[in-house]
Amino acid sequence: MIFKTGQELRDAAKKNIFKSQTSGQAKGYVQANLVILPADWAFDFMIFAQRNPKPCPLIEVGDKGNPYTSFCADHADIRTDIPKYHVYRNGELDAELDDIGDLWQDDFVFFLLGCSFTFEQALLLADLDVRHITEKSNVPMYKTNIPCHSAGKFKETPMVVSMRPFKSKDVIKAIEVTRDFPAVHGSPVHIGSSEEIGIADISKPDFGDPVTINEGEVSVFWACGVTPQMAAMVAKPPLMITHAPGYMFVGDKKDYEYKL
Amino acid sequence: MIFKTGQELRDAAKKNIFKSQTSGQAKGYVQANLVILPADWAFDFMIFAQRNPKPCPLIEVGDKGNPYTSFCADHADIRTDIPKYHVYRNGELDAELDDIGDLWQDDFVFFLLGCSFTFEQALLLADLDVRHITEKSNVPMYKTNIPCHSAGKFKETPMVVSMRPFKSKDVIKAIEVTRDFPAVHGSPVHIGSSEEIGIADISKPDFGDPVTINEGEVSVFWACGVTPQMAAMVAKPPLMITHAPGYMFVGDKKDYEYKL
Repeated sequence: MIFKTGQELRDAAKKNIFKSQTSGQAKGYVQANLVILPADWAFDFMIFAQRNPKPCPLIEVGDKGNPYTSFCADHADIRTDIPKYHVYRNGELDAELDDIGDLWQDDFVFFLLGCSFTFEQALLLADLDVRHITEKSNVPMYKTNIPCHSAGKFKETPMVVSMRPFKSKDVIKAIEVTRDFPAVHGSPVHIGSSEEIGIADISKPDFGDPVTINEGEVSVFWACGVTPQMAAMVAKPPLMITHAPGYMFVGDKKDYEYKL
Repeated sequence: MIFKTGQELRDAAKKNIFKSQTSGQAKGYVQANLVILPADWAFDFMIFAQRNPKPCPLIEVGDKGNPYTSFCADHADIRTDIPKYHVYRNGELDAELDDIGDLWQDDFVFFLLGCSFTFEQALLLADLDVRHITEKSNVPMYKTNIPCHSAGKFKETPMVVSMRPFKSKDVIKAIEVTRDFPAVHGSPVHIGSSEEIGIADISKPDFGDPVTINEGEVSVFWACGVTPQMAAMVAKPPLMITHAPGYMFVGDKKDYEYKL
């Protein structure tokens, strides 16, 4: 099943006809990470995101209790329109669900956060070789020793990064291209030595798949949207709901609208 | 009294030695708008700001109950380090104070929002004539018919804009320069006809002073940091504290750090 628009994909997800990963779907439409928290945790999370805009670039926040989007997509239902959800209780993954209507509470606030799919399209348009796309695998992601800024109950969270290797001359181009997309992680947070940011073995990512790094290539690290899940594992909110990794929210807005 | 750094100015404000406007002070240091609200209103305000980043560009948000800054400045006391404060009760200006230590509550959250002083420095560096600076007056500001996006209790707020006239060729340069400062209002929201955005008489600003518009010049309108005060006048929170217009918070960070 290949969908042309975000609306088509969301309709199929709502009916539980489509339950797959969203990579390569609805080309050109923005995809986003989801975080849902009860209001008392949500305000702290929003401050956490404001202080850590590279891993947590907010592109939409719902009003308390309102499950419908207004900005990324016109009136999408955040409870049903994503192909798969993860439910965390006290920081532990508790359930994987197709919809979360039964769990929705009047004090829930949803957050949509920019996703690297958007800037990867820009890298491809700039004729750069995005290794995990070439190798048809998931981007490698690593827990680092880069500390996120704390906010209220969200403390001592290590930043999670994604890595894409490039030839030296292409590193500059990759920085230039992604710098113009601050709403979807923006420019990299680190280039070069993986040891320097606390990664013991670049061939063993904490999430996703390893990719080939050729002789003479430089590892380029971007802040990653898995960081909020890491924050939840550390802070252990009683209840937090996210999309399942790779099963993103797909909006009506185009990637290009998130370019500065 | 001319201060060289934000720290010097804040020390003098803390001791109530300095009680004047901050324009032209601590050249190169970032200046910011202040909004303080109790937590139940603060979360709605933060969502309002997220949805309206041009008039309300958040550059720092405090943890609930914490009056000290960590980002714009190192441990500035938001209750004392600004030369003059305005206290609004139920949407009406109730008091003008030199410090607000007596009013501080455990559930207060402070917001610092980017200020046009930062991008004006960039316009001057680009050799543009910034009219109200040339004429040594306050920038003219206008209530418009451009609606802000609503958020929770903050509804139906008209955007306030500031206006600077430029020759046609300089309009393009002014857009280019300010586009790179999204944290301090960014690119303009309108150019040309003032009637189109609901301004009846360009020679009669709602706030600030009128400026000369020469034959052949185009009016360029930027979203303005007075918009949060307008939002408060409409939503009427029981208590909201701001800086007094022109009496800004002055940080330790440099203007240039807010360039994308």
